[in-house]
Amino acid sequence: MNPNASDLLTIGSRQFHSRLLTGTGKFKDLAETEAATQAAGAQIVTVAIRRSNIGQNPDEPNLLDVLPPERYTILPNTAGCYTAEDAVRTCKLARELLDGHNLVKLEVLGDAKTLYPDVVATLKAAELLVADGFEVMVYTSDDPILCKRLEEIGCVAVMPLAAPIGSGLGIQNKYNLLTIIENAKVPIIVDAGVGTASDAAIAMELGCDGVLMNTAIAAAQNPVLMASAMKKAIEAGREAFLAGRMPRRRYASASSPVDGLFL
Amino acid sequence: MNPNASDLLTIGSRQFHSRLLTGTGKFKDLAETEAATQAAGAQIVTVAIRRSNIGQNPDEPNLLDVLPPERYTILPNTAGCYTAEDAVRTCKLARELLDGHNLVKLEVLGDAKTLYPDVVATLKAAELLVADGFEVMVYTSDDPILCKRLEEIGCVAVMPLAAPIGSGLGIQNKYNLLTIIENAKVPIIVDAGVGTASDAAIAMELGCDGVLMNTAIAAAQNPVLMASAMKKAIEAGREAFLAGRMPRRRYASASSPVDGLFL
Amino acid sequence: MNPNASDLLTIGSRQFHSRLLTGTGKFKDLAETEAATQAAGAQIVTVAIRRSNIGQNPDEPNLLDVLPPERYTILPNTAGCYTAEDAVRTCKLARELLDGHNLVKLEVLGDAKTLYPDVVATLKAAELLVADGFEVMVYTSDDPILCKRLEEIGCVAVMPLAAPIGSGLGIQNKYNLLTIIENAKVPIIVDAGVGTASDAAIAMELGCDGVLMNTAIAAAQNPVLMASAMKKAIEAGREAFLAGRMPRRRYASASSPVDGLFL
Amino acid sequence: MNPNASDLLTIGSRQFHSRLLTGTGKFKDLAETEAATQAAGAQIVTVAIRRSNIGQNPDEPNLLDVLPPERYTILPNTAGCYTAEDAVRTCKLARELLDGHNLVKLEVLGDAKTLYPDVVATLKAAELLVADGFEVMVYTSDDPILCKRLEEIGCVAVMPLAAPIGSGLGIQNKYNLLTIIENAKVPIIVDAGVGTASDAAIAMELGCDGVLMNTAIAAAQNPVLMASAMKKAIEAGREAFLAGRMPRRRYASASSPVDGLFL
Repeated sequence: MNPNASDLLTIGSRQFHSRLLTGTGKFKDLAETEAATQAAGAQIVTVAIRRSNIGQNPDEPNLLDVLPPERYTILPNTAGCYTAEDAVRTCKLARELLDGHNLVKLEVLGDAKTLYPDVVATLKAAELLVADGFEVMVYTSDDPILCKRLEEIGCVAVMPLAAPIGSGLGIQNKYNLLTIIENAKVPIIVDAGVGTASDAAIAMELGCDGVLMNTAIAAAQNPVLMASAMKKAIEAGREAFLAGRMPRRRYASASSPVDGLFL
Repeated sequence: MNPNASDLLTIGSRQFHSRLLTGTGKFKDLAETEAATQAAGAQIVTVAIRRSNIGQNPDEPNLLDVLPPERYTILPNTAGCYTAEDAVRTCKLARELLDGHNLVKLEVLGDAKTLYPDVVATLKAAELLVADGFEVMVYTSDDPILCKRLEEIGCVAVMPLAAPIGSGLGIQNKYNLLTIIENAKVPIIVDAGVGTASDAAIAMELGCDGVLMNTAIAAAQNPVLMASAMKKAIEAGREAFLAGRMPRRRYASASSPVDGLFL
Repeated sequence: MNPNASDLLTIGSRQFHSRLLTGTGKFKDLAETEAATQAAGAQIVTVAIRRSNIGQNPDEPNLLDVLPPERYTILPNTAGCYTAEDAVRTCKLARELLDGHNLVKLEVLGDAKTLYPDVVATLKAAELLVADGFEVMVYTSDDPILCKRLEEIGCVAVMPLAAPIGSGLGIQNKYNLLTIIENAKVPIIVDAGVGTASDAAIAMELGCDGVLMNTAIAAAQNPVLMASAMKKAIEAGREAFLAGRMPRRRYASASSPVDGLFL
Repeated sequence: MNPNASDLLTIGSRQFHSRLLTGTGKFKDLAETEAATQAAGAQIVTVAIRRSNIGQNPDEPNLLDVLPPERYTILPNTAGCYTAEDAVRTCKLARELLDGHNLVKLEVLGDAKTLYPDVVATLKAAELLVADGFEVMVYTSDDPILCKRLEEIGCVAVMPLAAPIGSGLGIQNKYNLLTIIENAKVPIIVDAGVGTASDAAIAMELGCDGVLMNTAIAAAQNPVLMASAMKKAIEAGREAFLAGRMPRRRYASASSPVDGLFL
């Protein structure tokens, strides 16, 4: 029995058991994409509209053949967009291709080298998309003020990076992430920067609602086994968060928790 | 299907599927001990002979009623012993109480405040116990030289601390732990210091063969849920270790992994 | 002899020997302000125009009596401003009070609780101030894209936070800071978050051009001694940066530096 | 004026202003040894009797020509010794060569690869040397129990490693170091593992009485400048320790220090 079977993740109008969202790029082939996605237990899979074929090219292999929309919530993303206009256009294209599907992941990049977001353009695109009826999940920096503003604009989930996309460096600024979580009324989903299972667990222990990853799975030596590791790590971190961890002490006999002494 | 069903932990003459070893003290009552141990999926449970009733006091509740030796490998430990002699005597008592059972966890403490081991007395006790036919799992500091010596003496598993017993501080010296693992021909099992799920995952990702914990589960607000978290974290960390994590990079476009640059 | 006597910090049209900029608030009294500033060896001192008397109230003690502009470069700041308009107005007031002095430190806050910047309003205010002839040093988040944009607007120094103002948590995101430094053509000065001497040294070792601090000195038990510590830490970190640190290795006999293995 | 001019380090029967002890090996030549030692402001310099010529080879350059015993306290060390007997013999040789000088640095190594100490042999050698009238400063692991025992044997200073010799990894286990310091009645001097200036500052901020280093200076690209950096870092860390750092807070407006919340 899963101890937290009733612990659901609500994003906009949808609900999910899984808190591990996966990317679909960077895998060797569609068979690996399928196997890794299944091992991850993902229910939401994100698709880079500019790079993946979900029907634009009828003669080529279609990602949706291995990740059918009946089974997965397809989350089109705007990877590769550097302006608000481009991102908005890409979301509209996705909506057409997916028969009116309105859930999208917005990312507007500031720099091809680091793939860090352009937060000003992101704010602008988010406003346009919300006004146009999209349910917007939004990739952003870990700036607590901006994350709150994106929520106020009407985004259904805010997705701060933990470290640069594709870096695998793990969570760099836990205090920022904690502040973002404390302030939020929508789900906070770490997007980018997770490198291994413990990174994902840490994100969840901080109180994140989910984690989205791609490279950490696809660039492991054994992607399918790493996908399984990530599934368990996300559940472990979530349960640890819900279970309430023991206080840290210098040693067992210490009469009180570590008081502001952290080394 | 468990992706690593054939990945067994061999300790002396025994084999185990679970890599999470749990303590039996510090729980509210025997019912909680039982429920948490089950949720942890533990196969080896350690029992402080000086503090737990496994038959010494026939009129009191017996720990073995909820953790029957037919189902669990009982690992008597010498918690509370401060000399080699005391520890050896305690192991012999355990062997008698458990009908010749020869697997023990040796700990000789140096200090009641920190519960740090007395490594000199530990070495001495280990020699005596091995000579007397015990299969010795041994709690020690994270000193790579001592860990190797304990293996050479004939201990069947070496159990360095990650941080002080009962502290929940997490792994303090990852480089030492890695060196210990690289040098070892017997299982290295982190004993003490884990505080939450990600700590356990990190230990496994470093290549540890298992983790033993008690306070991290028993002192959580919800011990049974934390036990489940720990089970998944140990599996997640093990699978991530076996899967081979992605290399760290400054950002996705970096042509090579982070070269000696670690911040 | 100071090994780096010729190693000057150039900010806009001015040059400095000292790379430690200090705040003037939070001290017990003006005598302590004076003593700590001297012990810090600061040449640039920042003054919150909305909170400090530099002549607005002719009948009250004037900060400039202990920190005379002939000796210190006074850096008026806009602490307490939450809109671009307020910040611009405050800078203009400062310029009047200081007889045309055009060097200012811009901060536009997003939140009274965390004192995190409002980066959108900061960008707007920076544009207005640069257009009005100010030399703008600008407090911001550690977002590499925004830091570059502030430089492109014409700011003479960019001042990312290391951690929240007044937190003393030390540098949270070293990778971001390093990326900001690598991208920059103007001085990068860590503003906010330093708590003790080693934090300041780390900032300089990363390649920052300077550090601005207030609480770390003023809230130490002995502010004047801490000011001296900070002076030395800044110099130590700068010299270590210029000297080029040894590569990290697992141990002395390792044939190569730690390759992407960082724990 | 040095704010802590009266803050002396007492080791056995000697007193020192400088808290930075330096090694003399690994430099390019004697001229660099001399220049770096001067820049470091070291008063105690340690000499590997098995590798350095302090008179054993009358026809070769003598280290004492550039580091004259009238000016520096020469601290012979037993680097390269792997048994208690060897170490004791080496100390006696040093005493002869140095006309009865009885201050020595004991190290008994356990492993040529990591240069980690053999703590059992170290204890034995320390007892023999103390009984023979030596003032023993002793390199050891960061095991709090062993450090206390070495003090009880009569060592005049205990020198735990921060990380492996020559690694430059910085302090790995701050909690152990802090416990060692809290327990000690003799000076605790970090020996080995420091890589850059901030590492040295951190050691001093924890309350160490001094730091001994060699590779961090000698293997820097500019050893003399790094020596100057280290001098300042040691003083900065010491002053910060004495000054009493500000408490850490999540942000300035937090009503209380970070309570056991450390990320």
